[in-house]
Amino acid sequence: MARLVQKFGGTSVADVDCIKNAALRVKAEVDAGHHVAVIVSAMAGVTNQMVDLVNQMGELPDAREYDSVVSSGEQVTAGLMALALQDLGLMARSWLGWQVPIRSDTQHAKARLMDIEVEEIGTRLDRGEIAVIAGFQGIGADNRITTLGRGGSDISAVAMAGALGAERCDIYTDVDGVYTTDPRIVPKAQKIDKITYEEMLEMASLGAKVLHTRSVELAMKMGVRLQVRSTFVPDDGTFVVSEDEIVEQQEVSGVTYSRDEAKITLLRVSDNPGVAANIFGPLADANVNVDMIVQNVSENGKTTDLTFTVTRTDLKNAVSVLEAHKGEIEYDNLTADDGVAKISVVGVGMRSHAGIAQKMFQALAEKGINIQVISTSEIKVSVLVDEEYTELAVRALHTVYGLDAD
Amino acid sequence: MARLVQKFGGTSVADVDCIKNAALRVKAEVDAGHHVAVIVSAMAGVTNQMVDLVNQMGELPDAREYDSVVSSGEQVTAGLMALALQDLGLMARSWLGWQVPIRSDTQHAKARLMDIEVEEIGTRLDRGEIAVIAGFQGIGADNRITTLGRGGSDISAVAMAGALGAERCDIYTDVDGVYTTDPRIVPKAQKIDKITYEEMLEMASLGAKVLHTRSVELAMKMGVRLQVRSTFVPDDGTFVVSEDEIVEQQEVSGVTYSRDEAKITLLRVSDNPGVAANIFGPLADANVNVDMIVQNVSENGKTTDLTFTVTRTDLKNAVSVLEAHKGEIEYDNLTADDGVAKISVVGVGMRSHAGIAQKMFQALAEKGINIQVISTSEIKVSVLVDEEYTELAVRALHTVYGLDAD
Repeated sequence: MARLVQKFGGTSVADVDCIKNAALRVKAEVDAGHHVAVIVSAMAGVTNQMVDLVNQMGELPDAREYDSVVSSGEQVTAGLMALALQDLGLMARSWLGWQVPIRSDTQHAKARLMDIEVEEIGTRLDRGEIAVIAGFQGIGADNRITTLGRGGSDISAVAMAGALGAERCDIYTDVDGVYTTDPRIVPKAQKIDKITYEEMLEMASLGAKVLHTRSVELAMKMGVRLQVRSTFVPDDGTFVVSEDEIVEQQEVSGVTYSRDEAKITLLRVSDNPGVAANIFGPLADANVNVDMIVQNVSENGKTTDLTFTVTRTDLKNAVSVLEAHKGEIEYDNLTADDGVAKISVVGVGMRSHAGIAQKMFQALAEKGINIQVISTSEIKVSVLVDEEYTELAVRALHTVYGLDAD
Repeated sequence: MARLVQKFGGTSVADVDCIKNAALRVKAEVDAGHHVAVIVSAMAGVTNQMVDLVNQMGELPDAREYDSVVSSGEQVTAGLMALALQDLGLMARSWLGWQVPIRSDTQHAKARLMDIEVEEIGTRLDRGEIAVIAGFQGIGADNRITTLGRGGSDISAVAMAGALGAERCDIYTDVDGVYTTDPRIVPKAQKIDKITYEEMLEMASLGAKVLHTRSVELAMKMGVRLQVRSTFVPDDGTFVVSEDEIVEQQEVSGVTYSRDEAKITLLRVSDNPGVAANIFGPLADANVNVDMIVQNVSENGKTTDLTFTVTRTDLKNAVSVLEAHKGEIEYDNLTADDGVAKISVVGVGMRSHAGIAQKMFQALAEKGINIQVISTSEIKVSVLVDEEYTELAVRALHTVYGLDAD
């Protein structure tokens, strides 16, 4: 019988009733003949409470103690879920990271998984016992609890699915799948039935908050088929799979946007070899992530204008770093603008369809939207526009690529 | 340098400020030259919350899952306490039961400690690192978390003190020691400076709720010197020690009372051999604890009256058991009364002072209080009286044994 991993996020196990509801979703899969491992997050809000307590104890808390405190949330849910399953007449037991064991490195609070011993769990699954595993946690070589950082429970679920050779890893959440764009902006947005790992990665990093990029990367690497689905409605969700499972590619699978952008332009920068290093070296040292970069061809052979984007929270820091290094960089002037948004279209179909970018530029032009910066990857075209045009741009692109529901 | 164990109960670590205050009490002992192991309970109320969650998951929850859920409370406090100590510039780390390891049997939810490996903790204590140990929890041979039942964190503290050869085990709580009686009833009650294990056992089982009997028994067995003291005032508390540390014994060390009593009388029971077994066997089978028992000499050689006490919560159950077995026991009538209280005087001095009991009976008689049942042990005399006389009796006895403060 096929093995299946079901992962329930914080909103899916928010209280006793939610946990009991989630247990019914597990029972349905058991009744359908699956051998099931369940990964649970902390009850919604608990992790934040724990982080808050830790932060009140002093500056720069010891990450090992942070991990021990914060991981308690998943420990509680795992026990409660096992009890809920037992109450439905199923065999179930909880597993903490150190009990499995789920081995990680010792980078506490942002540990990376190394190895999962699934022999005993596998044997018990084969006997029909459900394994309820606390997500987000592992154990380091120091014999102390580690946590896996943001999106950690998804990582636990994917890794467990890989280790168990599961047929599928279902990520239960409070939305019923991945949409072609944000339905709050485009009511005609549609749930995507199947999407490739690569597309999901672009969607995730561009602001579709359903799955964290790390878990999608891991699923791609381990060949784990994912399904993003709702805990509260029984329908199929969105399958995230390898490209060869998707027969006919659309030009564009989704339109995403991000308002977390700020634009910095350096005017009349000396156009010498090494100028980019002079600019981006100090920013990297200051932990500022730079996203889109555009450098125009030098008009007079001496100076050029250079534009790039950072996240809004980094803007102030970035500007002060650049001003402190004005001497080495040699620029006339700096302008900063946090009133911008990044709009992207994503689709593996771009590889085989020409003119995708052109269609985008034309659609935006027809709406009178000025494009400030463009950047492209193999399966993505992104543009930076005035923030005011965000919704207009997203709607126009959703329509022009034929994504609107009938 | 001497090792010391400090145990902080739920009210002593109720919130962030309490934990920081408790950390200062630890720092004071470190500054005084001690090597300190700290045992912590869950923050006040947390264990009850967890128990409540578990009980909502279904009938008769699996005790192994109960333990995993409920033990999370101490896990959180241990991490927070370690952080608070680090914030004071001290070296500290948290230890969970399975990390020490603190080995117990596998009677989940009421496990008994078997063995504590203190080698690594001892080495670290000698280096000046504070060990913060989650109380109430251990690990069973099944590699699962166990909890130690009521008073479990005190047990953890005493066992750790014994294993570490600590000079003393300080139990921090919200009262400043053990009193000669309940100060709410007798404002002239005094804090006891030193009390023997045996007296403390009688005081604890008779209703002084400061220390659980199991931990006092263990301290006596392991020769661990205890101090019950307040987290919130710096004064010495009450030392619980062996008899040879107490030079001059008073007749009576304390007066206790319990309103948790109910009296059952069986009238005209057939006075045959085996009648007691016929009565108390079925009660034991029904998990009813019987406390005081009085059987009068048979008047006519055929029947006798038999009176005994049970806890009030057991009364209904006890009565129905006795009615169901009326045929075997052969009694005329059964009367039950839950309007009674047990008043006791306790003191190892009784062994060497004659007339202690007589002084008690006389004092009660002078106040017009009728004694319903009497029971005695080597260091205790208990009487059952009408509940209405509880305060009057306690005050009279406190005065007559010279326990009133000046």
